[in-house]
Order: sequence, then structure tokens, then C-alpha cells
Amino acid sequence: MKTLIQNAWILTMNEQMEQFQNGYLLVDGEKISGVGLMDSLPKDIVYDKLIDAGGAILLPGMVNTHTHIGMIPFRSLGDDYPDRLRRFLFPLENECMNEMLAYTSGKYAIAEMLLAGVTTFFDMYYFEQQLAMAAEEMNVRALLAETVIDTVTVDVEEPMGGLDYAEERFLPKWQGHHRIHASVGPHAPYSNTIEALKKADALSEKYNVPWMMHVSEMDFELEKFRKERNQTPIEFLEAIGVLSPRLVAAHCIHLTDHDIELLRKYDVKVAHCIGANTKSAKGVARVRDLLAAGVTVGLGTDGPSSGNTLDLFSQMRLFANFHKTYLKDRSAFPAEQIVKLATIEGARVLGMEEQIGSIEIGKQADFIMVETDSVNMFPIYDPYSALVYSAHAGNVKDVFIAGRQVVEAKKLVDFDLAQLRAELAEEMNKSGFRSKALKALKDK
Amino acid sequence: MKTLIQNAWILTMNEQMEQFQNGYLLVDGEKISGVGLMDSLPKDIVYDKLIDAGGAILLPGMVNTHTHIGMIPFRSLGDDYPDRLRRFLFPLENECMNEMLAYTSGKYAIAEMLLAGVTTFFDMYYFEQQLAMAAEEMNVRALLAETVIDTVTVDVEEPMGGLDYAEERFLPKWQGHHRIHASVGPHAPYSNTIEALKKADALSEKYNVPWMMHVSEMDFELEKFRKERNQTPIEFLEAIGVLSPRLVAAHCIHLTDHDIELLRKYDVKVAHCIGANTKSAKGVARVRDLLAAGVTVGLGTDGPSSGNTLDLFSQMRLFANFHKTYLKDRSAFPAEQIVKLATIEGARVLGMEEQIGSIEIGKQADFIMVETDSVNMFPIYDPYSALVYSAHAGNVKDVFIAGRQVVEAKKLVDFDLAQLRAELAEEMNKSGFRSKALKALKDK
Repeated sequence: MKTLIQNAWILTMNEQMEQFQNGYLLVDGEKISGVGLMDSLPKDIVYDKLIDAGGAILLPGMVNTHTHIGMIPFRSLGDDYPDRLRRFLFPLENECMNEMLAYTSGKYAIAEMLLAGVTTFFDMYYFEQQLAMAAEEMNVRALLAETVIDTVTVDVEEPMGGLDYAEERFLPKWQGHHRIHASVGPHAPYSNTIEALKKADALSEKYNVPWMMHVSEMDFELEKFRKERNQTPIEFLEAIGVLSPRLVAAHCIHLTDHDIELLRKYDVKVAHCIGANTKSAKGVARVRDLLAAGVTVGLGTDGPSSGNTLDLFSQMRLFANFHKTYLKDRSAFPAEQIVKLATIEGARVLGMEEQIGSIEIGKQADFIMVETDSVNMFPIYDPYSALVYSAHAGNVKDVFIAGRQVVEAKKLVDFDLAQLRAELAEEMNKSGFRSKALKALKDK
Repeated sequence: MKTLIQNAWILTMNEQMEQFQNGYLLVDGEKISGVGLMDSLPKDIVYDKLIDAGGAILLPGMVNTHTHIGMIPFRSLGDDYPDRLRRFLFPLENECMNEMLAYTSGKYAIAEMLLAGVTTFFDMYYFEQQLAMAAEEMNVRALLAETVIDTVTVDVEEPMGGLDYAEERFLPKWQGHHRIHASVGPHAPYSNTIEALKKADALSEKYNVPWMMHVSEMDFELEKFRKERNQTPIEFLEAIGVLSPRLVAAHCIHLTDHDIELLRKYDVKVAHCIGANTKSAKGVARVRDLLAAGVTVGLGTDGPSSGNTLDLFSQMRLFANFHKTYLKDRSAFPAEQIVKLATIEGARVLGMEEQIGSIEIGKQADFIMVETDSVNMFPIYDPYSALVYSAHAGNVKDVFIAGRQVVEAKKLVDFDLAQLRAELAEEMNKSGFRSKALKALKDK
């Protein structure tokens, strides 16, 4: 099956950052087989399906490098409370989260990402087996890390039980899948034993898959390691020997120069979640310094309770404004560079830069079209500016993953959104989640 | 004509911040004649038209307290260049801006605001006569200030010619209009004579209409007044006697404690433009301190070249994240308070709080409905959180101004967006704007 897309403003995001303002894209099966200017389209080209992009901006599917898709039921619950985690999140999670609630939440979250142009994500939560099934079913590309933490959780009966879950049930099952990659995600350096962190790293090495951890996110985390070991969390991780190019460190808000040097030395990847980090008043990570040192950084939404939306448009805009203001430099991070972080750099964070992240012949056909008909999308002198400063998730029109169209004209191709919502709402009721959430709000 | 809207989640934004989760609204002509819970809807109610809101969030129309609607042609042009104003904006404005370009740009900008749920705005630009006609024609509510500056401009032939423009041609013409209010807008304290500033204040007093000025926005502005007079810009404005409740001071990024005390003392209003101020790396105004002192603050988008979009959803989200992070307090500015700034407080900034800004019987029927069917709008425990952290401009479904529906099902009722764009594009071509903009980009 060959599809020709014509009349698109194509941002390849390749090494040379080539653009084709009046361009075509040819898709052959799962892969990209041609790209260029309409003028240079071979006359004798053969295809099964023709799509006119109508001047839409065509770019690689966006990569969300850090999220928790099982947490949709928590969205908008107690957002502005200082002790939100203890008051709302932990009790509800412990009492109500279950396989079906995680699964239906995962499907809903994936729908949200697809409709917003996210084609690949790296998740960390519980019941990752169910979340992987949701991702498989919805034709998205995903890396999913089962959480490891030093307590009993909703899906394991022993502290650090996520390790067994991952090793015995999860990683072997998805080995060799072309879109779904199972992994392991220690919650944080402070909530795991050294043994568990080493085991997680070893599993990641054995299965040759990135692993994920929240690192240098919390004030108390820094204090704890300073007090107990006179180290930063990243110095601690180096000391125990688990820094490697396979580690995706989420947040990294509080970094010393030495931390940045360590991240560079071990080629650790960083998932930067500007929206969640600033909504919770935690701070702004030193992304310019990280990039200057040569560290690979991608964008993440964090979970829907922390960042509220799972699209990267809002992250890109927050990224631009926060980093320019913190650096007191309006020309810092031009829009083009921010779109790179959302695409090819995100792919690099996940170790997938050979397969996805740019529009290049031979790569997987993961791409999106952002319409330019809506009122906010005119005029456009610079398509990167339009994506970063003007566009919102609702401007995404069409989405393809591995050559398969999953969103067409702003609607899911294979799923009915209202039904996904009804299924999630039913599980929120059955599990008691909804009634307990409302009660918690009343009691607040 | 009486319209009944049923099944809405109504946020009245009244003094008691009443909400009706399953509520009704009754509109009689231009005004609101009833509001409450569906349960309390009088059985014998009479109406001409029934609208089912389908669970949408219904709130007062948003108030954009500072913008430059004539500047749509500049959107996405040279966004990240340090000397953008001198390199792109000033030359293009001087060479190409004209009546018809301003007028078609104004109509397009108003379309963007209507579709995003902004029902009232305070503009400052050139050719305000044409912009007022555009606002009149498009059934929006507007305050429009003709710019006064110490140079020849595109619409006047003498420095400070905006004063004569305003006095002779503009203010008298719109006196007594029910929706359109003409005013005057000295560009800034540093770009006007003392005499001109006094004249602008006198005109505002004579016509009993707010006036507008950029204040304490630029670093060089502060330096200049410090060096020449050992004053802040606001101390200077007090010294010459032009601070009053009628002054809307845009930006106010750099304020001393004494400035805040002066703003309070004279009841000066502040138009806070968080998106534009942070995109240009200028800084974050001290809004918490302003509010604590009792100063009235509203939200503004600034012009489409500075802030890129004219909706208040992106402003609300940037506001939340910036102020929480700058204050290092995740519970600072709960979502409810931010929605207040976008509605009733914005109305207060414009001196219109008796007419608009809340859903109350007897007020003008300016209100909007934000649909909750889109993927980003579920679940909703707190509608304010949903508006601030989840919603985007594309979620606005229906918009009413003075009882008249101007947006229905996400489309303009009286205008065709594609045609408005075509008319603007034609003027951008005819005026040479487009070709000169492209040339400037090439030469950069």
C-alpha cells in the first residue's frame, strides 16, 4: 500500500532541518519512501491512495518522553492544594486503582495523545501490562515502564514487587514487538534500595531497552542525599553504577554543574516536563546548560494529574516562555529548536532516533499534519513559530503511525471517543473512584 | 426575544462565586433575566428559543484588557530575533500599514477573539476609526484607543497627532454607542510630552472613558526616568498629575513598592500580559503584590506579534505556571482566582463591571459556553481547573454578546472566516506587506 500526500508544508527535522513548503510525502507500507518539493515529484509515481494536505504543516509525530497514562481519573482533582499527593492522590490510588481502571484510563489517555499529534510516549505507572495492551490495541508506539517502589502497591504485594512483575510477566512478553517496548521504572532514587536500582538497570541492559526514573525532582530528595551521603541524587546514582545511555531521567530540575557533567559523561537522557514542574512551583530545569554540555533532552507532559494535558503544544509554548524569561534572553531557544526537542530529540531520548523522529526515507512513517485553516494559524512566515506560539492541540488534523492513519480530520480512525469516555467513566464508578474523589473534595 | 439555555455548568463569577452545576440561564433581549439550578426553573417559564448546553461550562465572556488588533499581519514574523522591532516591525508598519490593512486585520483579530470566547477588548493602535468600525460591524464589545506618540505615524502627519485624531474625529463620533467606546492611548511615558499626557488624561475625563498606556514595561524606560528625574515611570506620572481610576496601565512589569502604593492610591488599573512579557523575556509583574494592595488587575494578550494568539486560555495557563513558580508556591493563585482575572476583574479594569463580567440578572448577556466533549475536558472535578489547566481556545463552542449569538458550534454566526482571511490576505498583498515581510526575512 502506497500513499501519496501532496501540498504539505513539510518540516523534515532531519540533520539539515530541510523544509519543503509545497511538498509531497510518499509512504510505502510502514515506511517513508519519498519526500520532496511538489515540483520534483516524479511524473511516473505510482500510489494507491492520494491525500491532499491542503497546506497543512506536516512534521514527525511528537514524542512524549514522560507520562503516567493510568492517571486520567485524577485530572483536575485538587490541583491547587499544597498537600495534594497525600490528601487526594495516594489514598484514591490505593483504594480504587485496578486493572480495568488503569486499562480504560490508558486507552483514553492514548486517544488524547493521538488527537494531539503524539505518536510515541514513555509511560511509568502500575498495571503496565494492561497499559501495554491498551497501547498495542490503539496502534500507538510506546515504551512502558512498570513502577518499582519500596512499598506495597496496587499491583504488587511486596515492596519493590515491580521488579518481579517486570522480569517475570512484563518484559519477556513484549520482547520483539515492533511498536510496544516493555521496561521498568524505579519511582525515584530515594524510594528504592540500591539493590533494586541495580536490578532495574540490569533488566534494562538484558532487554536492551531504556529505563525510567524520576531524578532530582523534589527538594526533600536533594536534602536527603546531601544529609545522608553528602551527594546529589545523580552523584549517588553514579556511585552505585547505574548511570548509562539507557537511563531516562525525568525532571532533573535541580542540577549542579557536576550533575550535568555526569549526565553528559554517561550519556544519560533527560525528560524535561516544564508544564508539570512549573504548575507545582518546583522550578525550571537548566536545559540550556544541559544542551550546551551535549546532554540529550526531550519534552514530557508528566501525568494528567500533574500536567493536566498530554499534548506537546502546551509544553512547547511553556518551554519557550519559561526558558527565555529565566535566561533573560528573548532569542534563546528559537521556535525551531523547541520543535526539535518535541520530535527528533525526543526520539533520541528513547533510543529510537534510527526509526522515528524525522521525515527521512527509510524511517517509520510516524507523522502528523497540523491544519492552517483555523483562525490562530494565519499568517505563517515561520512554521516553527506557528507551532510553538500559535497552535494548540486542537489544530492537529491527521496522524499516522507506522504508515497507518490513526487520526483523520481530527477524529480517531479506529475508536469512538465518546465510547472510550463512557468505558472509563463506568470503571471510575465501579471502582468507587468517582464517589471517593467527590467525598475527598467535600471533606477538604 | 427570550432564550433559555439549559443543562449548563454555570460559573456566575458573582460576589459569592456561585456555581450551578446543572443550571439554566434566561436571556431577555440584551440582558440576563434569570439564572439558577435546573431544579428551580419556574414551571411556567416562557421563551422563544431553547438551547441545550449539553453540560458545557457557561461563564461570562472573557475580557482582553490589552491588545493591538491591527497587527495580525505581523504574527510569526521574526519572533525570536533580539532586534525584532527595529528589524521587522517598525519598517513594515511605516511602509505598508494603511486603513484597509488595519480594518481587515481588525476584523480577522476580532474573529479570533470571538471564536476564543473574548467578548470585550481594549485595543491600542493606529487607524482606530477603522478598527472601531470593524468592532461595530462584528458585534463585539470594545474600547479602542488611538495611539499618541512623539513621531509622525501611519495615520497622522504630526508628532502627537493622535490627540487631534482622537479629539476631532474619533471620540465624538462614538459617544453614546452601546458597545463601542473610543478612547486615546499615549504609547508610553517616554514617548510623549508631558503636555500630551495631560491632554490624553483630560480627553479621557471629558468623555468619561478609560485611557490606555504602556507603563513600566521596558528596561530603558526605567533607566531613563531614573537618570533624568530620579523617578520611576509611575512616580513621574503621579508628579504630572495623570494617575486616576480611568488609566489602564499595560504591563507594569517593573514595579517598586512605592509604585504599587501609588497605583492603589489613585486606583489605576493594570492590564497584565503574561504571555507577551515572558515570550520577550521582560519578566513577570508582581501581580500578587498588586492584588494584595487592592489594585485591580486584568489579563491581556498584547498584540498578535507579541503574544501571537488573542485568546485568554493560553494566558490563564501561563499565568498559573509563572506566578506559582515565581512565588515558589503551588497553591498560589488557585484556578478560580485566575478565571476571575479573565472575567469580572477584566471588566473592572475597563470600568464596565456594572454591565458585564459576571452572570447576574440585569447585566448584559455576554457569556460563552466551553464544551466538555473534547478529549482534554474529562474528568472535571473543578470547572475552574479545567478552564485554566486543560482547555484551549478550540474548546469554545458558543458565544453571546448583548444577547446576540456571535459564535455557534465553533463557527462565526455572521461572518465566514475563510472570507475574512481572504480579504486580509488581499490587503497584505496590495499594500506590499507580504512581499516586504518575506524580503526582510530573506535579508536577515
